[in-house]
Amino acid sequence: MLKQIASTPNKDGKNTNRITATVGKYLVERLQDVGIKHVFGVPGDYVLDLIDRVVESPMEFVGTCNELNAGYAADGYARLNGIGAVMVTYDVGGFSLFNAVAGACAERVPLVVISGSPHSARRRNRALMHHLATDYRLQFDIFSRITACAVHLTNAAEAPEKIDRALKLCLQQKRPVYIEIPMDIVGQQCSEPTKTSFDLDLTSDQEALREAVEEASEMLKKAKRPAILAGVEIDRFQLREPLSRLMEVCGFPLAVTIDGKTAIPEEHPQFIGIYQGGISRKEVIDVIESADCLLSLGAWFTDVGSGGFTANLDSNRIISAKEDRVRVRHHFYTEVYLRDFIESLIRSLNGKFPLLLQDELSVPKPLEKYTVRPKENITVGRLFERLDHFLSDEMVLVPDTGDALFGAAELRVNEPDSFICQAYYMSIGYALPAALGLSLARPDKRAVVIIGDGAFQMTAQELSTIIRQKVAPIVFLLNNDGYVIERLIHDGPYNEIQQWAYHRLPPVFGECHSVRAQTEDELEAALAEAEAITDRLVFVEVILDRNDCTEALGRITAIYAKMSSSSRK
Amino acid sequence: MLKQIASTPNKDGKNTNRITATVGKYLVERLQDVGIKHVFGVPGDYVLDLIDRVVESPMEFVGTCNELNAGYAADGYARLNGIGAVMVTYDVGGFSLFNAVAGACAERVPLVVISGSPHSARRRNRALMHHLATDYRLQFDIFSRITACAVHLTNAAEAPEKIDRALKLCLQQKRPVYIEIPMDIVGQQCSEPTKTSFDLDLTSDQEALREAVEEASEMLKKAKRPAILAGVEIDRFQLREPLSRLMEVCGFPLAVTIDGKTAIPEEHPQFIGIYQGGISRKEVIDVIESADCLLSLGAWFTDVGSGGFTANLDSNRIISAKEDRVRVRHHFYTEVYLRDFIESLIRSLNGKFPLLLQDELSVPKPLEKYTVRPKENITVGRLFERLDHFLSDEMVLVPDTGDALFGAAELRVNEPDSFICQAYYMSIGYALPAALGLSLARPDKRAVVIIGDGAFQMTAQELSTIIRQKVAPIVFLLNNDGYVIERLIHDGPYNEIQQWAYHRLPPVFGECHSVRAQTEDELEAALAEAEAITDRLVFVEVILDRNDCTEALGRITAIYAKMSSSSRK
Repeated sequence: MLKQIASTPNKDGKNTNRITATVGKYLVERLQDVGIKHVFGVPGDYVLDLIDRVVESPMEFVGTCNELNAGYAADGYARLNGIGAVMVTYDVGGFSLFNAVAGACAERVPLVVISGSPHSARRRNRALMHHLATDYRLQFDIFSRITACAVHLTNAAEAPEKIDRALKLCLQQKRPVYIEIPMDIVGQQCSEPTKTSFDLDLTSDQEALREAVEEASEMLKKAKRPAILAGVEIDRFQLREPLSRLMEVCGFPLAVTIDGKTAIPEEHPQFIGIYQGGISRKEVIDVIESADCLLSLGAWFTDVGSGGFTANLDSNRIISAKEDRVRVRHHFYTEVYLRDFIESLIRSLNGKFPLLLQDELSVPKPLEKYTVRPKENITVGRLFERLDHFLSDEMVLVPDTGDALFGAAELRVNEPDSFICQAYYMSIGYALPAALGLSLARPDKRAVVIIGDGAFQMTAQELSTIIRQKVAPIVFLLNNDGYVIERLIHDGPYNEIQQWAYHRLPPVFGECHSVRAQTEDELEAALAEAEAITDRLVFVEVILDRNDCTEALGRITAIYAKMSSSSRK
Repeated sequence: MLKQIASTPNKDGKNTNRITATVGKYLVERLQDVGIKHVFGVPGDYVLDLIDRVVESPMEFVGTCNELNAGYAADGYARLNGIGAVMVTYDVGGFSLFNAVAGACAERVPLVVISGSPHSARRRNRALMHHLATDYRLQFDIFSRITACAVHLTNAAEAPEKIDRALKLCLQQKRPVYIEIPMDIVGQQCSEPTKTSFDLDLTSDQEALREAVEEASEMLKKAKRPAILAGVEIDRFQLREPLSRLMEVCGFPLAVTIDGKTAIPEEHPQFIGIYQGGISRKEVIDVIESADCLLSLGAWFTDVGSGGFTANLDSNRIISAKEDRVRVRHHFYTEVYLRDFIESLIRSLNGKFPLLLQDELSVPKPLEKYTVRPKENITVGRLFERLDHFLSDEMVLVPDTGDALFGAAELRVNEPDSFICQAYYMSIGYALPAALGLSLARPDKRAVVIIGDGAFQMTAQELSTIIRQKVAPIVFLLNNDGYVIERLIHDGPYNEIQQWAYHRLPPVFGECHSVRAQTEDELEAALAEAEAITDRLVFVEVILDRNDCTEALGRITAIYAKMSSSSRK
């Protein structure tokens, strides 16, 4: 795969390299080359020269209230833009950002982390500069643990190669990278960008690929009840299109993991639902667990993704292809990349299946009619039932961790890029800043955030930047007076939180529409307003009973409560 | 020094060790033994069993809105309580907390960081548990870089020794320590606490101590214009009392660094002011820079502390004693502890000086009379002038980084423990959560927070926990529409921030008193209310001109602006 980056042909058709005089300008050119239009961050003296270069460029610098939120926003941006960037000052900035980048690493999000740092001379004489926690290696060292590549620019001459290497690995591995630039290096001269594209190709070991595909094909052809399980990597490595062709060729039924929800449109006739171990719908369990050959593509066996490790799958029947390796039963093929494997499998299986399996599939049920029950208090079950009617293909659903996620997972999503969540890392509070980022990445889509009150309190101030940037998400704040997910797993007084007048908060930050809904007719009014008011934030505080939760959350927390209590013995 | 910890004598006067059946209970007992009454944190499933143990104990668990804020609160608590503790869940919790702990490390604050983690069996088989960023070593490894001691409890038998070692080093080194406890270990049985005290004595190398004191005494006795510079370690290592005796014995004039502001009461006749390099008051520069022997005690030569490295000091005339070493001119004595050095110096100098130097000192000027100018807009200079009259010994001043700090540094503070700031690490937003912590540590003191709008936006939600905990700080929000400190160093559009209706924010979180003051008479009214309303948060939004700043900030930012622009060349 070649990532095309912009280049300017001159009159006789050859590429001319733009003049870039300094390291700062080189970086900023390259960020644009890979498609970044917005850089998130918080200003601080060690990084101001770098931010100046962003401000001078066609890119926009988006200042957030704090660095953690900048990281979440850049993560949300990267998920819909293909890559994102965040720029912070040294130590106080980088360390505050760390959790967001760790999340991007865990969830495979390509995020360029750029930190300014003190003048090289200060570093050499180990001066006690403000913001320095311990030593001048620390920030570099800890980011090198959560990035595909960490570089520290110690002189201008090496800057182009280091910057290019970091950006290439970011795009290739879909993980964060880290670039640290001392303030004196920013303005130093370096060579101009010479390449016009990054070669992102990763070539599979052809012999291993051939053998893996032969073996997999044989198993699949012999199978009586084959099935596919698609996971998060389909989305991250942009493999929706080849997956769709594979499904067409084989006709197998397909389930997705919770973090792979947008691997195919849910209206696809072969789509059967979300597989999440023992807490899945019965029809899905029947197909996936009784498959005599299960083709798992880019799926991770995480605890939450497998329903608290309740997946009942026989490893003797599984072919599992991931990013860079294929496992068949109990042996591995390494250096076999997921895209190559799927493409080869398509060629190998083409014409071998009469698509007969489709007939046996359970066709997704049409949406049940929703009739408002005026004056009745809203329940979380009814809320999600209603949202399933409300959501459109022009919206991106952004559920935060908690009941919001488990409820949203069951909503119908057909468009790719229409469901963004941290279904594995699960850092609460992520969704709100992420909605800022993805709204800027995709102005054609409207973000719909669903977030619990405990999560909201973590990052609430980022509503301010949402308002400031004039993006217009709809935020549903589920006010159930505390950490409901923890109440179900393991209750205690610490699951109570301070009760805010949530709907009165957004107007403190600026112009928006904010309401409170306790009954179904109030919810109807709020939804109608949300549809009508499309030019600014619409905030809906939904009052729920403190013990109300979705069935899905009830199922999974019962398993965790059991695990938790058994760990105490 | 022996840290006495509580023990229960039985009838015949011998100590009986209390029964503690489990690792969780052992930890909680020990936290109480070292004097902790409040544990800050955010619940999360891997740490709920540990929090349960806190909740069952006489200690209080104080849940904050997010982990960074929990860390800041625990830091503020530790500064006034002698030690503090924070408890979080794995990875998402620990990583969000990291910046606060890095700050505590940089500023020498004894903070016990406790993290739950997944079940040991999950760790052994490297299960993909939610919240896990990369691998099960990462959190331990990064915290080991910013702590005096990091321990991971892998079995119950070793838990008592590891917990005791961590707590001892926390108290001894005045740095954070890290304790990681897998959720299955919490309930396992371990031995009971056997010791009733930690031996915190650090014994100086007696020969080195004797020689260092002899050499220092000779230099000081020969000096015609000796002076003392006291720094941050006087406060952190609780050396105010010996310092005071030393001053009595020698009669030398004394200046403090900005982070050592509370080393002695400012009304002390030998106190001459804050020394901050070339930006200090002229009288202070005269005494310190022309001293023919400068005795520096526990002072760090940081960039901000030395006025952007403008201190003009001749190292041939300096005796500098720190934590564990003494430097005389250009040679070092190691393993000489600051307390021992001061005590020995007192004995060596006693009776050698007739205190004649006191007469020559500039006596601190009495406070100038402040007359309200009704209808006039408040300026930051006038605000600090007014606050100097308003503050009392029963208050703790908590200025955040920025003009708040530089203005507050010049206010008169006589009581120890009455000035808390991050004058070195300078992580903006620290002061607000720190005020929560120190209010709980010292209910007899009232916290007075001064914070800029940019800093406030970082951690604003912690007003919620302040209200919830019914502590009653006074918060002065300096609304100058952006990052004024950066505007002065290096301006750009990124120094503008979203303008909030700040005074309308606190009532969203709960019951409090919140007002806005633009003119001097409005400020008077607000101060009168703040004095009258002592049972809840009083929040005063002070409207300032966007370019208004204190003279002190003007002086230091001019130096930084110059350094910053020269680094671009």
